Amino acid sequence: MLDPLFDQLEDLLPEMSAFRRDLHMFPELSHHETETPKKVAAYLSELGLEVKTGVGGRGVVGILRGDKPGKTVALRADFDALPIQEENDVPYKSRIDGVMHACGHDIHTGALLGTAAVLSKNKDMLEGTVVFLHQFAEEVIPGGAKSMIDDGCLDGVDVVYGAHVSSLHPLGTIGLKEKNAMACGDTFEIEISGRGGHAATPHLTIDPLMVGSQMMINLQQIVSRQVDPVKPAVVSVTAFNGGDSYNVIPDSARIQGTVRTFDNDVRDAIEKSMESIVTTTGEGLGAHVDFTYTRGYPAVWNHPEETKRLEKVAQNTPGVEQIEYIQEQMGMEDFAYYLLERPGTFFWVGGAPAGEPIYPHHHPRFDIDERSMVDIGRLFIGTVYQYLSGVEEQAQPETARAE
Amino acid sequence: MLDPLFDQLEDLLPEMSAFRRDLHMFPELSHHETETPKKVAAYLSELGLEVKTGVGGRGVVGILRGDKPGKTVALRADFDALPIQEENDVPYKSRIDGVMHACGHDIHTGALLGTAAVLSKNKDMLEGTVVFLHQFAEEVIPGGAKSMIDDGCLDGVDVVYGAHVSSLHPLGTIGLKEKNAMACGDTFEIEISGRGGHAATPHLTIDPLMVGSQMMINLQQIVSRQVDPVKPAVVSVTAFNGGDSYNVIPDSARIQGTVRTFDNDVRDAIEKSMESIVTTTGEGLGAHVDFTYTRGYPAVWNHPEETKRLEKVAQNTPGVEQIEYIQEQMGMEDFAYYLLERPGTFFWVGGAPAGEPIYPHHHPRFDIDERSMVDIGRLFIGTVYQYLSGVEEQAQPETARAE
Amino acid sequence: MLDPLFDQLEDLLPEMSAFRRDLHMFPELSHHETETPKKVAAYLSELGLEVKTGVGGRGVVGILRGDKPGKTVALRADFDALPIQEENDVPYKSRIDGVMHACGHDIHTGALLGTAAVLSKNKDMLEGTVVFLHQFAEEVIPGGAKSMIDDGCLDGVDVVYGAHVSSLHPLGTIGLKEKNAMACGDTFEIEISGRGGHAATPHLTIDPLMVGSQMMINLQQIVSRQVDPVKPAVVSVTAFNGGDSYNVIPDSARIQGTVRTFDNDVRDAIEKSMESIVTTTGEGLGAHVDFTYTRGYPAVWNHPEETKRLEKVAQNTPGVEQIEYIQEQMGMEDFAYYLLERPGTFFWVGGAPAGEPIYPHHHPRFDIDERSMVDIGRLFIGTVYQYLSGVEEQAQPETARAE
Amino acid sequence: MLDPLFDQLEDLLPEMSAFRRDLHMFPELSHHETETPKKVAAYLSELGLEVKTGVGGRGVVGILRGDKPGKTVALRADFDALPIQEENDVPYKSRIDGVMHACGHDIHTGALLGTAAVLSKNKDMLEGTVVFLHQFAEEVIPGGAKSMIDDGCLDGVDVVYGAHVSSLHPLGTIGLKEKNAMACGDTFEIEISGRGGHAATPHLTIDPLMVGSQMMINLQQIVSRQVDPVKPAVVSVTAFNGGDSYNVIPDSARIQGTVRTFDNDVRDAIEKSMESIVTTTGEGLGAHVDFTYTRGYPAVWNHPEETKRLEKVAQNTPGVEQIEYIQEQMGMEDFAYYLLERPGTFFWVGGAPAGEPIYPHHHPRFDIDERSMVDIGRLFIGTVYQYLSGVEEQAQPETARAE
Repeated sequence: MLDPLFDQLEDLLPEMSAFRRDLHMFPELSHHETETPKKVAAYLSELGLEVKTGVGGRGVVGILRGDKPGKTVALRADFDALPIQEENDVPYKSRIDGVMHACGHDIHTGALLGTAAVLSKNKDMLEGTVVFLHQFAEEVIPGGAKSMIDDGCLDGVDVVYGAHVSSLHPLGTIGLKEKNAMACGDTFEIEISGRGGHAATPHLTIDPLMVGSQMMINLQQIVSRQVDPVKPAVVSVTAFNGGDSYNVIPDSARIQGTVRTFDNDVRDAIEKSMESIVTTTGEGLGAHVDFTYTRGYPAVWNHPEETKRLEKVAQNTPGVEQIEYIQEQMGMEDFAYYLLERPGTFFWVGGAPAGEPIYPHHHPRFDIDERSMVDIGRLFIGTVYQYLSGVEEQAQPETARAE
Repeated sequence: MLDPLFDQLEDLLPEMSAFRRDLHMFPELSHHETETPKKVAAYLSELGLEVKTGVGGRGVVGILRGDKPGKTVALRADFDALPIQEENDVPYKSRIDGVMHACGHDIHTGALLGTAAVLSKNKDMLEGTVVFLHQFAEEVIPGGAKSMIDDGCLDGVDVVYGAHVSSLHPLGTIGLKEKNAMACGDTFEIEISGRGGHAATPHLTIDPLMVGSQMMINLQQIVSRQVDPVKPAVVSVTAFNGGDSYNVIPDSARIQGTVRTFDNDVRDAIEKSMESIVTTTGEGLGAHVDFTYTRGYPAVWNHPEETKRLEKVAQNTPGVEQIEYIQEQMGMEDFAYYLLERPGTFFWVGGAPAGEPIYPHHHPRFDIDERSMVDIGRLFIGTVYQYLSGVEEQAQPETARAE
Repeated sequence: MLDPLFDQLEDLLPEMSAFRRDLHMFPELSHHETETPKKVAAYLSELGLEVKTGVGGRGVVGILRGDKPGKTVALRADFDALPIQEENDVPYKSRIDGVMHACGHDIHTGALLGTAAVLSKNKDMLEGTVVFLHQFAEEVIPGGAKSMIDDGCLDGVDVVYGAHVSSLHPLGTIGLKEKNAMACGDTFEIEISGRGGHAATPHLTIDPLMVGSQMMINLQQIVSRQVDPVKPAVVSVTAFNGGDSYNVIPDSARIQGTVRTFDNDVRDAIEKSMESIVTTTGEGLGAHVDFTYTRGYPAVWNHPEETKRLEKVAQNTPGVEQIEYIQEQMGMEDFAYYLLERPGTFFWVGGAPAGEPIYPHHHPRFDIDERSMVDIGRLFIGTVYQYLSGVEEQAQPETARAE
Repeated sequence: MLDPLFDQLEDLLPEMSAFRRDLHMFPELSHHETETPKKVAAYLSELGLEVKTGVGGRGVVGILRGDKPGKTVALRADFDALPIQEENDVPYKSRIDGVMHACGHDIHTGALLGTAAVLSKNKDMLEGTVVFLHQFAEEVIPGGAKSMIDDGCLDGVDVVYGAHVSSLHPLGTIGLKEKNAMACGDTFEIEISGRGGHAATPHLTIDPLMVGSQMMINLQQIVSRQVDPVKPAVVSVTAFNGGDSYNVIPDSARIQGTVRTFDNDVRDAIEKSMESIVTTTGEGLGAHVDFTYTRGYPAVWNHPEETKRLEKVAQNTPGVEQIEYIQEQMGMEDFAYYLLERPGTFFWVGGAPAGEPIYPHHHPRFDIDERSMVDIGRLFIGTVYQYLSGVEEQAQPETARAE
């Protein structure tokens, strides 16, 4: 029944590709997107959708009302780029120095616009409403999701879906995860104020480098000893900097990093333990320590029922060759905020480019097979119809999940 | 002028040896000396000295008044043994299981008694008084010196000398040190109370072994970073014990050790810093820590003038072949207490046994050449006369100290 | 259809209790069970089962052939006790000093014998064979499971089930876990040979306590940095011992502990990394290190299909009030070996005694509500019939798993 | 007898001051001195001395031959400045941005030129030769001393003296030290190459920050455990840098610092132990480590006889109020090289400016009382005459050194 729509989407690939390549050539950093939302809004308007701009800051929301009444499904794509200098040699290489769509958000946007185009052409079939959430600033805390929600982007919405393309998985592969899917991500800074002095007379100093090293060592015990072994947690120091000479012990040193967890009790316990460890380590050696712990995105918690719906849809979607239930990821996503408000699920769609080698996301040579936009769009379309109309719900016995 | 006395002492070697060997066969542990002081007192009484027993507990003091009035010199020998099982195969091997004169205190006692014998035979030459301090319990804190002083053993004394035989230096070698000579020695205990539990669920425990390890690491910074590099200091953990299974994290662990310093400000700073580090390390990881710091003997501080006097005497003592100014030792000695009260010096006398290998003090095969008793006695006799009568003070130009 | 059997089992509770209390009064340590297997064999023989003793050492296997041909189900109970002094004040308190059934293996045995009794009375209904595995030595590596398997106890067996009572969960509660259920448990020993010496001269020693502390610190990085955060792992040092004085740095120190993992690649990587860390830490500080890593039980991996079967059976078992899917446990069980050979599942059955406080397993006051034997037995009976005859498979729509 | 010369020097203070202030206004960095040596050479030439320029690179040597034959004394002053922005508000404040005479080398130069002026006026009294060593690049390894010596500046020289002004000691105070006076100073760099990656997946990285922290901790044991406590040693890490983000574990980290020792065996042992510790720490955690240890200046070893000569001269020098024997300093000086070649001594001369607060050397507000130039010059003049002519050698009994 959806096959004509799937075909229409495939026919739209050149248009999706053109849009995506334009974004790719003119990427915009998180919280600095100005042209991207204009382009998105223009496309959606042309489709005849009701379009809101400046949602929560720089977000764009398109609303497509079906010809029949029903529930409301939201679909989300993010559109910000990264501070990376592209090293690919492609015609659509980034024209902006030091900025690159190196995470595939251009693909997400192209796919969601193609989805909007197909659904709007078939709104006579649509029993309900579809809300297209084009989100800014996913890469940088605080992301755009929270402020778009605060600005009402989920008003009236019953369920929400989001997808992420993956350069590391082949085209046709779908990744699903029930419940904890992506980690809660916090950041921290530790400023150690000792007392500098001549390297030859350490006893006249309070050595911030030793205090910092001690701290880094002591912090390891949080994950190795204090967190329940079956609850994933990461405490990573990503920068330690102090001193720049051969004969002067510096006054201070700075440590920064990130914490990844899923459970709030683990998160709370880690923050508390970090504060205890860094404070007492400093105190024991006579240094003053400023510890700042900044809470970032919550964990992405995929609703099991919606995840199973996605699985069922994927089983009937042409082009999908493999459906995998994957392990939780320690990376983070502000799609988490939508799922705190509404049922829904966040899923992965393979898009590894042909050839070797393959580069990971956030790499200067990151690339994606654009046909993944068709896969994403079809899964969105299938899920929308399944949710609004129960299409094929009875027709297909539930397949046992592959273990 | 003293040559006849030196000869008399040499003639006494068999008697000193017999006395020493008797002590060696029947050694007595610190604070448990019962027969040894009786034997010493009997010998001194027989010489006609005024003898006090039970001084400060188990000490023996002999007083020899010269025929002419003058100042008072004290000479000290310690007489306690060690909890070591002797492994030497000699006729005078210890008859007491697990107890041995493995530090040479039997030699010290024999030498001092020989000295008393010679001086008492020549008291017509003596312009003043000699006090013989036979001290108990040098090896175990609190040593006997403090309580003997409290009991008046230094009353009327003007100057005090003590010697230690050395198995590691050849016969005829004298070691001197001005000022800081032996370290102040304190001890500490750290009781770490965590919360035990199953090894498979460390997050339900407060792991005292990790707290202890962290502490041992953190404590290294005291010597490496906090003490003036030109001021010798040692913080040694000598025992770390906790746990006895493969699957149970214990409730507690125990750390103990010693601190060696010379300067009181360093000593105070180390105690304070240790307390700060162990307390905060425990606190940071949620454990309770009991820290006990026990002050032991103060540093042996040799008065320069008396040390130089000893040097001058040694230069004129037959049998002395080499006089060395040595570096301060991190070991400790309760002779320190006498030097806090009176001028004086503590010196080393070589007594390495013939043959190889040579064993250090406190070793089950420790041995000493008994002729060192003659050297010690002669140096005592020479110093007594030099101090009381100024013998040869003018006759001898000061020899440049070997650099 | 099984209700009469369930009733029969309930009627057997006094008999099961009597048997269990006898075991409780006369507990026998792992690998030292002599009377227990005799009692078990006698009971099974009396039921008319084919009985093998001395299986794999001290195991007892009873075989019950149903009147109809079919598949073969194995049920397992362990019967060894622990080196713990019982502190409960009950009539059936352990009569053996320092030995106690503090983990509930007496309950397991009683429940399995009751199961055998009921099934043997109803073998006309039985379409296949039931093998009763009474296992010795579950508590001590190497456990009895491996040798019983090597001795053929699973010959002809198609599926195997095992249960563990829990003092921490109320009667009527069933715990299930698909796939990884209990951890693989290895042990390790680290012997550090340094060079002892006087605490005042650390530079003449190679301090094994510092080497050990360094090692313990360095080992934390395995779990905190090297293991995939979503793969549970524990590296616990459970004992660190070296030194016993205040002034002697010891020659050596000894560290021991356990490693818990689920995945073999994680297990391999941890062993390799531990060896690398302890070896290089010793080498860097001049000490010799002997590292021994002993592989213990593999992980208990519950087959999903059999776990779901158990769930379905439990839903229809009177007395079962709550079925929970629980998280993997870091504890270990040699039931793992059976599951390496055959499909099956290992599950938990609540047996918290009435009243407060409740003590955990391996505690001197551990206690269990004996009615849990009825629950265990009923679940065994239900599963046997479900597996052999497909009883009620169609009758009952699958209940959604509680999320 | 020298009083007229001392008076002449005092009269020269305005001229010395003018010269010094000119240098202070136009300071030149080590190895970049171009105008300074020209000015020095011009002044010496004007005095009629034989002058060599470009000695060893940028050094200036003036030779004054007395009217009578005799031995040869060398006097040394360094003339390089530091990369520090002066913050003093004085008329002669540095005109060169970011460069400042913040260690008093301008004072040294002024004092030595004044000395040359006075001695050249009185060369009829001079029984021998005086060599004036104006040295470049004392502050930066490799200093100028070594290359000036290689270029022959000590040819024919019998003894060499050098002085350092001190802002921390009052005018009139002289500091002396026999034997070990200033430390040997080496530098080291540790480049840690791990494998960077996402902070959320530390198990895919080799974390160079953790390797570095571990190293810093492990390195503490060198001073705290491995070096003889009575031999001063410092191992100071002065910079630890790696990473600059919140979510990326960097590829590498860099540690640098300095080692200070006096004894060559300690120096060798520390280098060897550092290499062992950093290499094995990296190896144990899978990182590659490049360790570079660069030997700097040797220790300044003051010859006792020359130090005592200086003491005797100082006792007879007007303006000298206090002579202190000080402890060895952990700072370094390339004067050490001269003393490896010739007897001599290096001493300290107080020059604290009037008023408060007083700033240490190398501080942007460092300042010196210019009258210290008179003191330095008089001590040089006195020592030259004492050495060449034995002036007052017999007249004055040796004063006991203050203990």
